Amino acid sequence: MDSVLRQSKAMCPFMKKASAASLRAMSTAVTRTQSSPCGGTISKLQVLANRCPVMGKAMAVQSARFSRGGVTGAHRVAGLSTFAGQDKPGKAKLHTSRTPQARPVEGQPLFVAGDKAPLPPNVAAKHPVGGPKTSLAAGVQSDARFNYEGFYNAELDKKHKDKSYRYFNNINRLAKDFPRAHMASKEDRVTVWCANDYLGMGRNPRVLQTMHETLDEYGAGAGGTRNISGHNRHAVELENSIAKLHAKEAALVFSSCYVANDATLATLGSKLPDCVILSDSLNHASMIQGIRHSGARKIIFKHNDVADLEAKLASLPLHVPKIIAFESVYSMCGSVGPIEAICDLADKYGAITFNDEVHAVGMYGPHGAGVAEHLDFEAHAQGRPKGTIMDRCDIITGTLGKAYGCVGGYIAGSAKLVDTVRSLAPGFIFTTTLPPAVMSGARAAIEYQMEYNGDRRLQQLHTRAVKEALDERDIPVIPNPSHIVPILVGNAELAKRASDMLLQDHDIYVQSINYPTVPVGQERLRITPTPGHTKEYRDQLVDAIDSIWTELGIKRTSEWAAQGGFIGVGESRPVVEKPLWTDEHLGIAQAARELLAASPNKPVRITERLLEQESKGINSAVSAAA
Amino acid sequence: MDSVLRQSKAMCPFMKKASAASLRAMSTAVTRTQSSPCGGTISKLQVLANRCPVMGKAMAVQSARFSRGGVTGAHRVAGLSTFAGQDKPGKAKLHTSRTPQARPVEGQPLFVAGDKAPLPPNVAAKHPVGGPKTSLAAGVQSDARFNYEGFYNAELDKKHKDKSYRYFNNINRLAKDFPRAHMASKEDRVTVWCANDYLGMGRNPRVLQTMHETLDEYGAGAGGTRNISGHNRHAVELENSIAKLHAKEAALVFSSCYVANDATLATLGSKLPDCVILSDSLNHASMIQGIRHSGARKIIFKHNDVADLEAKLASLPLHVPKIIAFESVYSMCGSVGPIEAICDLADKYGAITFNDEVHAVGMYGPHGAGVAEHLDFEAHAQGRPKGTIMDRCDIITGTLGKAYGCVGGYIAGSAKLVDTVRSLAPGFIFTTTLPPAVMSGARAAIEYQMEYNGDRRLQQLHTRAVKEALDERDIPVIPNPSHIVPILVGNAELAKRASDMLLQDHDIYVQSINYPTVPVGQERLRITPTPGHTKEYRDQLVDAIDSIWTELGIKRTSEWAAQGGFIGVGESRPVVEKPLWTDEHLGIAQAARELLAASPNKPVRITERLLEQESKGINSAVSAAA
Repeated sequence: MDSVLRQSKAMCPFMKKASAASLRAMSTAVTRTQSSPCGGTISKLQVLANRCPVMGKAMAVQSARFSRGGVTGAHRVAGLSTFAGQDKPGKAKLHTSRTPQARPVEGQPLFVAGDKAPLPPNVAAKHPVGGPKTSLAAGVQSDARFNYEGFYNAELDKKHKDKSYRYFNNINRLAKDFPRAHMASKEDRVTVWCANDYLGMGRNPRVLQTMHETLDEYGAGAGGTRNISGHNRHAVELENSIAKLHAKEAALVFSSCYVANDATLATLGSKLPDCVILSDSLNHASMIQGIRHSGARKIIFKHNDVADLEAKLASLPLHVPKIIAFESVYSMCGSVGPIEAICDLADKYGAITFNDEVHAVGMYGPHGAGVAEHLDFEAHAQGRPKGTIMDRCDIITGTLGKAYGCVGGYIAGSAKLVDTVRSLAPGFIFTTTLPPAVMSGARAAIEYQMEYNGDRRLQQLHTRAVKEALDERDIPVIPNPSHIVPILVGNAELAKRASDMLLQDHDIYVQSINYPTVPVGQERLRITPTPGHTKEYRDQLVDAIDSIWTELGIKRTSEWAAQGGFIGVGESRPVVEKPLWTDEHLGIAQAARELLAASPNKPVRITERLLEQESKGINSAVSAAA
Repeated sequence: MDSVLRQSKAMCPFMKKASAASLRAMSTAVTRTQSSPCGGTISKLQVLANRCPVMGKAMAVQSARFSRGGVTGAHRVAGLSTFAGQDKPGKAKLHTSRTPQARPVEGQPLFVAGDKAPLPPNVAAKHPVGGPKTSLAAGVQSDARFNYEGFYNAELDKKHKDKSYRYFNNINRLAKDFPRAHMASKEDRVTVWCANDYLGMGRNPRVLQTMHETLDEYGAGAGGTRNISGHNRHAVELENSIAKLHAKEAALVFSSCYVANDATLATLGSKLPDCVILSDSLNHASMIQGIRHSGARKIIFKHNDVADLEAKLASLPLHVPKIIAFESVYSMCGSVGPIEAICDLADKYGAITFNDEVHAVGMYGPHGAGVAEHLDFEAHAQGRPKGTIMDRCDIITGTLGKAYGCVGGYIAGSAKLVDTVRSLAPGFIFTTTLPPAVMSGARAAIEYQMEYNGDRRLQQLHTRAVKEALDERDIPVIPNPSHIVPILVGNAELAKRASDMLLQDHDIYVQSINYPTVPVGQERLRITPTPGHTKEYRDQLVDAIDSIWTELGIKRTSEWAAQGGFIGVGESRPVVEKPLWTDEHLGIAQAARELLAASPNKPVRITERLLEQESKGINSAVSAAA
């Protein structure tokens, strides 16, 4: 930094005039000002620099490039400080933009196209101790060529050291033995408790039959991009079904919802003039990347915090285009976005809403269109989508790879919006269409779930049963109103060991979720019940977790409570959110009355009894449908 | 631009001192200088600005963000001019970074996080006539909220006006009637001449059988990301087969090769300290995006120009990490990259090579590993990959969606490289694994093509036959040594009309290729023969094109020649490159001798006769293999 200042002084007349002392004073004096929409602080030097037509632009561009999820507003506006290589550990430290550490610091200007590269022979000397120096030292060979293998090695070492290195488990989910799978050896069987095939649609007979038929008639692959021979009836029909599902004019299918989110946000954010994207702090990596790739200004609002979002919206001119990007169900904690309140704010401040329903489609609402549909359950059940919350969401994105059991992602919205993304997004235009059989299978799954809501009701009953059973054993489930069952461990190594023990000692597969997917200290096991996870499997799971918690000495709910609670676990006054699928939706209230009437003097486990009834009814419905 | 200068003058002492006349002189005087690594010209004002520690940074960042494929070096270094909203039509005008037009010009600074948004109520007034004004005027409503639908409409209008709006044709390729397809109606049959299922593997019996079995055993979808329940034997086996195919230590499969290229270049470019990426000017959109997303410095070298590449490499310090990104077969013109020469330069200048074999895997080499393998045909045929050109390529990327007939993409390289990308790339980490059946089908296709080279030989013979037949009719094929048959039209509207007439009048589907996929004025029909495109189909195609060329008055080769030639067509001294599949590879020389010996006094069409023999032999081989 010092040498940037030195260099600036030599060449810029303002810097030349200013004394070192006054520059130092200006760069340390911070000002907290209304003008910062992110509520951060900036130095006086930065205020001056912002006013400069030259430096202001540089900082705006830097700010747009370096902003990332989980990093505070103060960090984001500190255009100058990004050169100093400071980077807070955040929720999602993703790696597709050059990190500040990887940039030349300490006064070495960036390579400038058109200038001769000004770096000294010994790159390593430029970097501060502890961070990049290690890898750079490894990267420089004696003959001065860069040592790529040494660099890869150093990067992997870092992952091993901070316990974020991922070991993949070989899990082969068996269609005829759901939710069981075999490991590398076919004889080595386990129960899968963490897949996102939430409804078991991956083995649904109607889906499989459709795929077999399509495979025979239309072959393995689409054979081209949508524009060049890869557009077909499967794409047309699938997009029609998706549009119908969400009661939108149009839909567009992508290779994945990662690509859908990335491509859509990048395209809109870059094309809408002066666009600002307001992004929930827990948004998925795909949205964070899309926003970054757009180059648009990003403002992060606190997770599900409507007041914070409003304050940030209010700081922007009404006429400026704004996208509010959020999720309906947050995958790793199971929290649910305040969709209606966000739609209200969008109307008030002239924004559009981008609602990622990836973990909710198939799972909520009378037709499985997601949480937005669920919130107006009756209206949608009666076929009246106009004016509903779902109707007010401008862009809904979803996946075909979780509750629908296949692969692929999509957006749904107005015809013009969809056509604009279709026409401009490279990630849509320049890639091969999904295979016909995948599209027809996904469509069969959507249509099936639109007609029949038994799978998602049963899934919810199983979710309740698992949460209740874990609660009875004092196992800390992070509370939420959705189908996700996040069990708090709070330590990367323990989470990995618990996961390994479940697999090795109990034949149960639950992947541990560590940084960077969740913040350090919030490591967890993420359990996803399905309609196939019946009582037998549940009892095995709960017993296994109970014994592992004892063996490894992992904190129980009461222990978290003794410490004052943590992220909702063991808190004395937890904010209890009613489950999205209420007792009424699930018929629990009525069942309770009936069961009590039948045996008035016996204690009754309602969920359990209801499950027994449901399970029978649903199995016969599935057989009938197949 | 004027008002940027005005504002600068008010605040920057250098600009204050300089007279308007001298500024104008400096900004128009161009200098061609060694210091520009792209060999372009820059103005004196830009040279000065580059030297300024403040403006230089702004320009470097701008240059990195705005640089795109096909745009000249001069444009890339002209940081100032990007603010003026000038953007040359280039090969690939992609839209995930904010375009210059969408930025505030005429002296309005960008929104800067931390500053109060400085825009006046009427945004429209800020934009110059002709470009963004239209869309912005449409975007501003009377109540001052942004009019999103109006904006989408304006964007689509632009596409209609410049004839780049894409109309998709509904093409349903029939597995049992390859290369035929039906349109929206099942009765409406056409011959597909532009799919990338180059070898017909999409209907290969072994591939389909494998997919059916996997579907039955393991269901429709993978059920999770690779880290969370989506890693399975199909992924392991597929990656093993890919590594074996390319004789590399490891491989990694992605949703598509678009994602593979984007994620790999973005990750490496952002993580390797001070990385510079040297990119062929005709590189695919996925590579352009990956480089942009990396934030690394990009230097574009002239298409396939080894001297230009060397000049640019030589301008960089030896120790700085560099990636040379290129393709083996360029899809839209069929040109072939100078892989060996690039490997030599990489060694000399301490770079690594990133070789995109997307259009070549399955198609070249004794095992179908691509052009790099093909160049050492005998060594690879004998199982000696060490020290070959393929061995020297550090990163090979390929697709499972073209010659292998399925969907998905991959990288292959050293174990450490692959593990690094696996561990760091969000586009790999945070997305659902491809379906088991897709992975097993793709693996079956790879293994099939590793064992059997009859399909690709027959494909090459058909390519030769098509090129020869078109040449006899004076139809302008852009010359190249590969399997791509690009027919030059040179006008967007004519290309679209020719394509429409082929479909409507002749039941032949060939999509027209217009801007931005190819530059304006180079519009073409891109023909892709397959082993299934036998003489009957070829004759129909050639007759149809001949008649349409006459009807629409499209230029023939002799007419291009009369104008001095254009992009290789009708040039008096064309650089004739020998086809990658030589006469010797295809057995043409020997067949010619035999045929001449058999009937010494008859004129013989060698390719034709050979095709008849090949076709018979191959059909029985396919049947035997199935």
